[in-house]
Amino acid sequence: MLTDFGLSDPFVGVMKGVILGRFAAARIVDLTHGIAPQDCRAASFWLGRSFAWFPTGSVHVVVVDPGVGTERGAVVLRADDHLFVGPDNGVLTGVLERAESTEARDIDLARFDLPPASHTFHGRDVFAPVAAELASGRRTFDEVGEVKAAPSRLASARPRRCGGDVEGTVVTVDHFGNLITDLDGALMSHQAEAWVGIAGQQCPVGRTYADVHPGELLALVGSFGTLEVACRDGSAAAKLGVGPGAPVALCAPPKPARP
Amino acid sequence: MLTDFGLSDPFVGVMKGVILGRFAAARIVDLTHGIAPQDCRAASFWLGRSFAWFPTGSVHVVVVDPGVGTERGAVVLRADDHLFVGPDNGVLTGVLERAESTEARDIDLARFDLPPASHTFHGRDVFAPVAAELASGRRTFDEVGEVKAAPSRLASARPRRCGGDVEGTVVTVDHFGNLITDLDGALMSHQAEAWVGIAGQQCPVGRTYADVHPGELLALVGSFGTLEVACRDGSAAAKLGVGPGAPVALCAPPKPARP
Amino acid sequence: MLTDFGLSDPFVGVMKGVILGRFAAARIVDLTHGIAPQDCRAASFWLGRSFAWFPTGSVHVVVVDPGVGTERGAVVLRADDHLFVGPDNGVLTGVLERAESTEARDIDLARFDLPPASHTFHGRDVFAPVAAELASGRRTFDEVGEVKAAPSRLASARPRRCGGDVEGTVVTVDHFGNLITDLDGALMSHQAEAWVGIAGQQCPVGRTYADVHPGELLALVGSFGTLEVACRDGSAAAKLGVGPGAPVALCAPPKPARP
Repeated sequence: MLTDFGLSDPFVGVMKGVILGRFAAARIVDLTHGIAPQDCRAASFWLGRSFAWFPTGSVHVVVVDPGVGTERGAVVLRADDHLFVGPDNGVLTGVLERAESTEARDIDLARFDLPPASHTFHGRDVFAPVAAELASGRRTFDEVGEVKAAPSRLASARPRRCGGDVEGTVVTVDHFGNLITDLDGALMSHQAEAWVGIAGQQCPVGRTYADVHPGELLALVGSFGTLEVACRDGSAAAKLGVGPGAPVALCAPPKPARP
Repeated sequence: MLTDFGLSDPFVGVMKGVILGRFAAARIVDLTHGIAPQDCRAASFWLGRSFAWFPTGSVHVVVVDPGVGTERGAVVLRADDHLFVGPDNGVLTGVLERAESTEARDIDLARFDLPPASHTFHGRDVFAPVAAELASGRRTFDEVGEVKAAPSRLASARPRRCGGDVEGTVVTVDHFGNLITDLDGALMSHQAEAWVGIAGQQCPVGRTYADVHPGELLALVGSFGTLEVACRDGSAAAKLGVGPGAPVALCAPPKPARP
Repeated sequence: MLTDFGLSDPFVGVMKGVILGRFAAARIVDLTHGIAPQDCRAASFWLGRSFAWFPTGSVHVVVVDPGVGTERGAVVLRADDHLFVGPDNGVLTGVLERAESTEARDIDLARFDLPPASHTFHGRDVFAPVAAELASGRRTFDEVGEVKAAPSRLASARPRRCGGDVEGTVVTVDHFGNLITDLDGALMSHQAEAWVGIAGQQCPVGRTYADVHPGELLALVGSFGTLEVACRDGSAAAKLGVGPGAPVALCAPPKPARP
């Protein structure tokens, strides 16, 4: 389960109750419910970078759904032997970009015998029951609905090359204050002695947090494969005063960094 | 499990350890642990509105317990084929009000072979083990203790009718800043063109968040069946500067909203 | 699982995906992920005081790991029929101090057939898979690696006796604002009419929160066996303006409290 519901309300718990009511043997794992409210981009990023760590056959319920109650579609995506159930609003972009094979179907609610859905909580009323039906094996992917040729994707904010530099964006800030960017870590391997420019600062590129002294900034390839800017034993976000959306540049020496 | 313990300490985890020690096959779901400390009213509200989404046969452990260590009682409530284990302090009011059939018993600790309880953590020392005994089937509801004729209820803050208007109260604020009230959604269906008055503002009544423009307020029937005041793509609580306890009025046109 | 990862990112969820991928029948419990970033002392305290509430045979994955990516070791500790998997950085001190029997082994990664580890997330790449191998029974403790004679311990901050008084330290502040100290509760039983001095205040010693009026301070033996300073229906941390590291003294009457 991946949502922006937080854990202070019973929303996630109730979804689990619905799932267990339909599939008592379900093993339910929270990927996170701490996505910032309605931040489809962060959800898409983490989902795309995380799903392959789960066993094949997993059913992922994804609910970041600012358009709940409107005519936005609902889809099931099959990607590399994982299933994803959620709104068709781009939140699956990261999976679509990173999976080797993908196939989507619209959720045809008429094919599921569900009680009438509320206008504001399709996580409970649509996505949880559909996921439970799929996970239990009572329904197969092919029975979900019609083939969806092109599920929605978020407008690409792909890193841009600019001379010897590559410019990207901070996607999210983690619990430790690390600034996670969309610059793929593979870019770094070709950039010996490169620097990373962010918020007017130049950060050396390192391998792990301990490569710099406590309180110092460094850039490194994070554990999910993208460049991140960290502060040893501290918060880079607090130190630099930036967050999601901030521009970041991977710069070839000796050109000075630009944000 | 529903508590006000939060998740920053090991309290919830230790309760789960105790449950699994007595019933290794337990499937444990967190309803929420984000109830504001000692807020029995919010716990009662969410529990009463949430429990029916869980499978019958569920055992709900409810620990919002400001009187822990005093002589307050401990009860098991059977309601519509669910069991509820917790302190007898009114936290089960919402279940008592909404279940079709209810029956309660005092927890007679002498009937359970438990180690001595601490004075401050009956969640671990009383409620978790009793719940595990019930969930495992080793003890039945009838064996818990003597029949409790009238379990404690919170003083009613039932909505009051006042001319054509109905006045209620904000019970809690959810993660998105929606103001959840105790006004039952059924009231709205008879109120075409009604407005909701709160914090000196008049809010139109809608069906879903997208019925207004981003940043605008609206009132709607939330997914748990009561009136809520929301701000599209924002926080109504922040916009209005109110929270739990704030008065709210569902007003028939054309009378101006109050308060 | 005990970490300082928080729940806002997918780190904990991904570890669970890895565990379930290797051991589908695992029953995973979160002890807490709310340890303050890199606070090995609080993690050690809670772990040492909590583990015995879990069934014997439990495998505890402990990741508070400021030295990730450096040459710090990785260990498995066997203590009273529990296993603990984590970095060798002192985070297991509380278990080492409180278990009756302990035995440790270095994790010899060459003995496990793991993909290459990242430099920043050994929770996912080392500790989760090793724990899953142990929990599944595919590997035994003896197969983990060489015997580790002396796993790392945090520098002791043992309470000091000072005349009739005992001086200790606040280890952590819980969700309710209670100040949890390292003074063992057994000290209190010999101290009739004792007072606790903290932040220039004298607090009476009680048995449970309700022994004082709302808003008043008291000291009591908390549910994990150490002295804590609480404020009835409030936050002692907020009222006193102190937190982890603050000195606390258990004072024999009639000597005034210090500090």
